[in-house]
Amino acid sequence: MKDTTAHIVEVCPRDGLQNERRVVATEDKIALIHRLIAAGARRIEATGFVHPGRVPQMADAEAVLAGIGPHPGVALIGLVLNRRGVERAVATGALDEVNYVVPLTDSFGKANQGQTTAESLAALPVVRSMAADAGLRTTVTVAVAYGCPYEGDVPVARLREAVRAIADTGPDEVAVADTIGCAVPADVTSRLRAVREVCALPLRTHFHQTRLTALGNVHAAMLEGVTVHDASAGGIGGCPFAPGAGGNAATEDLAWLLHRGGHTTGVDVDAVTRAGRWICDVLGVPPRSAMAHAGPFPTSHPPRGPG
Amino acid sequence: MKDTTAHIVEVCPRDGLQNERRVVATEDKIALIHRLIAAGARRIEATGFVHPGRVPQMADAEAVLAGIGPHPGVALIGLVLNRRGVERAVATGALDEVNYVVPLTDSFGKANQGQTTAESLAALPVVRSMAADAGLRTTVTVAVAYGCPYEGDVPVARLREAVRAIADTGPDEVAVADTIGCAVPADVTSRLRAVREVCALPLRTHFHQTRLTALGNVHAAMLEGVTVHDASAGGIGGCPFAPGAGGNAATEDLAWLLHRGGHTTGVDVDAVTRAGRWICDVLGVPPRSAMAHAGPFPTSHPPRGPG
Repeated sequence: MKDTTAHIVEVCPRDGLQNERRVVATEDKIALIHRLIAAGARRIEATGFVHPGRVPQMADAEAVLAGIGPHPGVALIGLVLNRRGVERAVATGALDEVNYVVPLTDSFGKANQGQTTAESLAALPVVRSMAADAGLRTTVTVAVAYGCPYEGDVPVARLREAVRAIADTGPDEVAVADTIGCAVPADVTSRLRAVREVCALPLRTHFHQTRLTALGNVHAAMLEGVTVHDASAGGIGGCPFAPGAGGNAATEDLAWLLHRGGHTTGVDVDAVTRAGRWICDVLGVPPRSAMAHAGPFPTSHPPRGPG
Repeated sequence: MKDTTAHIVEVCPRDGLQNERRVVATEDKIALIHRLIAAGARRIEATGFVHPGRVPQMADAEAVLAGIGPHPGVALIGLVLNRRGVERAVATGALDEVNYVVPLTDSFGKANQGQTTAESLAALPVVRSMAADAGLRTTVTVAVAYGCPYEGDVPVARLREAVRAIADTGPDEVAVADTIGCAVPADVTSRLRAVREVCALPLRTHFHQTRLTALGNVHAAMLEGVTVHDASAGGIGGCPFAPGAGGNAATEDLAWLLHRGGHTTGVDVDAVTRAGRWICDVLGVPPRSAMAHAGPFPTSHPPRGPG
């Protein structure tokens, strides 16, 4: 594999936090984002514009964005599920990008966002247009693209058709998301190839560690030329409407893996490990990353040899 | 990737147990092996013939093998580090195979087995000959083939030279082992290709989950045509002389991943998950596999949909 640049989209402030029981203070969310920027994050899903009654952790979306301040070279993303979300996102004046979610199954769509796949696809053109009018990029995440917690396996043909419909609306990027952590590397290869058949747009991955496949899945995606990957500092995360979903791929683990494979990411592994540990302390949960436990290899302080 | 058969070598009774503090009763070790056979294991590293003062968990090697009984179609393996180990292994009359360890660094070799790489290689022909005289296969595991806990990165040229020397002695198989869990999939691809340049023998992998890369590493090996992989039920294991090493790839996780990728292994994921949980209960430690926590996907009992 040739040396290439890989890109990590830091989703800890949104996907990382949204499923945690303890609601984090607004100033701590802002401090987290500052720590992530200091650790090299250049694209950050900072918050979600979702119903505060359904996801209390995201109720302070506007206040978080107001507190981040200008950071040239850093793109901030807001997750949106509908027109109302885009209106709120645009009104902040603080975002570079909205990330719109299209569920690949109606069961998950109804649970996650009260929409079927068709309803979500139907609203995409207006979402795209509202964002474009405000000068924001629109990226689209296909949720449960590898499998659904309610329906199990989802035919690849359905993914191909959904991506074709999404591509027709001309977003800036499409993420093929394993929302629940059921994908294996062989699935990644076959599904990304299927998506490529109908979509020439830039692609992004999103993997969870539910079944410990996330790092291998990213490697499989890199082999397909997909170089942009969501990850969460500390490996926290999971969807409140995706039962059993484990944490996101940990940013520090993914960056270490990519660096060892000859890629650059711009992420400082030690610094993002510390940021992950810090937010986990705030949440009162243990960090889930391998870097937080075993640390990187090689280490600068190997154990003393046997003499 | 075409559908192929993959093979899992079950190392739970040896690599899985050897680093656990609680010494397991001989009858529980025998019961574990019987559970693993019932779950589909057909090649099992049953014990190690090592110094009981250094690895107390393996002190009852002969008694374990005496208690297993005949199981047609199941190959039992004994780990050996020297002539004395082979003598003991042969004397049991219960084994099909000895697995001899060649350390790729002198630092690890002295810590693990009191031998340098050169000393270990020098003893291999006689080990091979003693095993052959007793009708046993000899397989050779190259330890710390991806990196050393004491020396850090190990040049690929050193691996190539060690494997060339091993291949010259004509063993039945060579395992390229990531003893400490530092390999990423890109390393697997490059090192297995380097090994292939000098060795036409069957190859085997051995990965640890220290940095959550084991499943992706196996997938990378499968893409290189290497279809035999060590794994441990419950994901337990680690080397007492490899500081910081995490558990082995869990058999149940690996079997699930391989099945999802279109391969057959003969392993019953649910049964080996139960076997892993059982031995972890005996040890008083939590199982480390994803299957023991999240379970397989798809599940036969999906959560109730949103209605």
